[in-house]
Amino acid sequence: MKRVVLLRHGESTWNKENRFTGWTDVDLTEKGVEEAKKAGRTLRENGFVFEKAYTSYLKRAVKTLNQVLDVMNLDWIPVEKSWKLNEKHYGMLQGLNKAETAEKYGEEQVLLWRRSYDIAPDPLAMDDPRSPRQDIRYNELSDQEIPLTESLLDTVNRAVPYWKEEIVPYLKDHQQIIVAAHGNSLRGIIKYLKNISNEDIIGLNLPTAVPYIFEFDDNLNLLKDYFLGDPDEIKKLMEAVANQGKK
Amino acid sequence: MKRVVLLRHGESTWNKENRFTGWTDVDLTEKGVEEAKKAGRTLRENGFVFEKAYTSYLKRAVKTLNQVLDVMNLDWIPVEKSWKLNEKHYGMLQGLNKAETAEKYGEEQVLLWRRSYDIAPDPLAMDDPRSPRQDIRYNELSDQEIPLTESLLDTVNRAVPYWKEEIVPYLKDHQQIIVAAHGNSLRGIIKYLKNISNEDIIGLNLPTAVPYIFEFDDNLNLLKDYFLGDPDEIKKLMEAVANQGKK
Repeated sequence: MKRVVLLRHGESTWNKENRFTGWTDVDLTEKGVEEAKKAGRTLRENGFVFEKAYTSYLKRAVKTLNQVLDVMNLDWIPVEKSWKLNEKHYGMLQGLNKAETAEKYGEEQVLLWRRSYDIAPDPLAMDDPRSPRQDIRYNELSDQEIPLTESLLDTVNRAVPYWKEEIVPYLKDHQQIIVAAHGNSLRGIIKYLKNISNEDIIGLNLPTAVPYIFEFDDNLNLLKDYFLGDPDEIKKLMEAVANQGKK
Repeated sequence: MKRVVLLRHGESTWNKENRFTGWTDVDLTEKGVEEAKKAGRTLRENGFVFEKAYTSYLKRAVKTLNQVLDVMNLDWIPVEKSWKLNEKHYGMLQGLNKAETAEKYGEEQVLLWRRSYDIAPDPLAMDDPRSPRQDIRYNELSDQEIPLTESLLDTVNRAVPYWKEEIVPYLKDHQQIIVAAHGNSLRGIIKYLKNISNEDIIGLNLPTAVPYIFEFDDNLNLLKDYFLGDPDEIKKLMEAVANQGKK
């Protein structure tokens, strides 16, 4: 049996301030670090031993992963980082407070931006200091590839190819991996793995730093998937995420 | 101009307890974490921006690197880990206190073990729980490759090929890298880069977590090398390392 763990990063400073983050490279809060350590302890206690880890270019995911691996004494395993696992790019919303945006544009518009499948917020201007074109970490990407905004569909269209082209080939010869990433890039992978509709994927609110386990047979057929942890606690965490867009 | 930074890990729990560590995977102390952060700040303030990082399979080096990269906002760069950058394997001395060993065997014998070029301590037994053969991280190595003890020569004979075969090809097309590793694996690389004799390399005591800069021209000819930081402070740190083997 093969096991893949998907893990959304722990609380970030902008989760806490309820701001649209997207590709902004904000840090974990103290609570976020503790959440990550707890995820590591849970995985260790449940006998997980990863052979490789995948994460994004954003420090809230990288540092969540580092904490998990350290608690598990797996600091030494290979880690592959890719911008394709980054959070959805939120365009001109990046930096705005979610509740304020809801007051200004209405809850429905915010929910549409946050949760519609194929509608993207207005893009950043090319010369906006927030633009990834100003950031050395995306230097090797073409202008075509660098998003200035994204719909969930756009995010899926980079995260799923990464899953298929980078992760699956490795998984064919290995048993256990972890992917530490973001609400929307993980939504893309989950949508693909569970064949979830465009409408239903919008309603999936991943809790922060709760290990989401996918078990596969040797031919990579999905056998089952479940969250690792206390069900009541996980339910509360998912509701908290769903409520972030409210006034 | 190309720049390579060699960085010995910050203080570990066994540095503090003055025990032979070798391949034992001990953690950083709080002081070690602070030393790593300071190294990161120094590198940032001096304008370093690394494109790739290399480290060992041992968490004191990995975590030193993680701290440095985080302070520099470079959490996202690729990191390659290899056992070939591990500390020298100290055989049956691993776990023993250096001062106690000096009292028992004499300072000279300890200095010989610590600092002779080609004399290795007695090896661990194959079934010793301390043996790397019992450790999953070395599963992919042949029994031939896994050391049960090493002389400095043995360490040089794996660290220098790693430099030549893995690091140099990358450096040909890039400008700035960092190697976060250990006193003896870094000695091997320094010996090679500066063409230092077997006798003289023994006297080189690298301070913990002080960036050691090597500048090269585009053809990888060494132009100059220097420690980054306050010279008096660095001198004291080097003397402290040299004195560890005394009673």
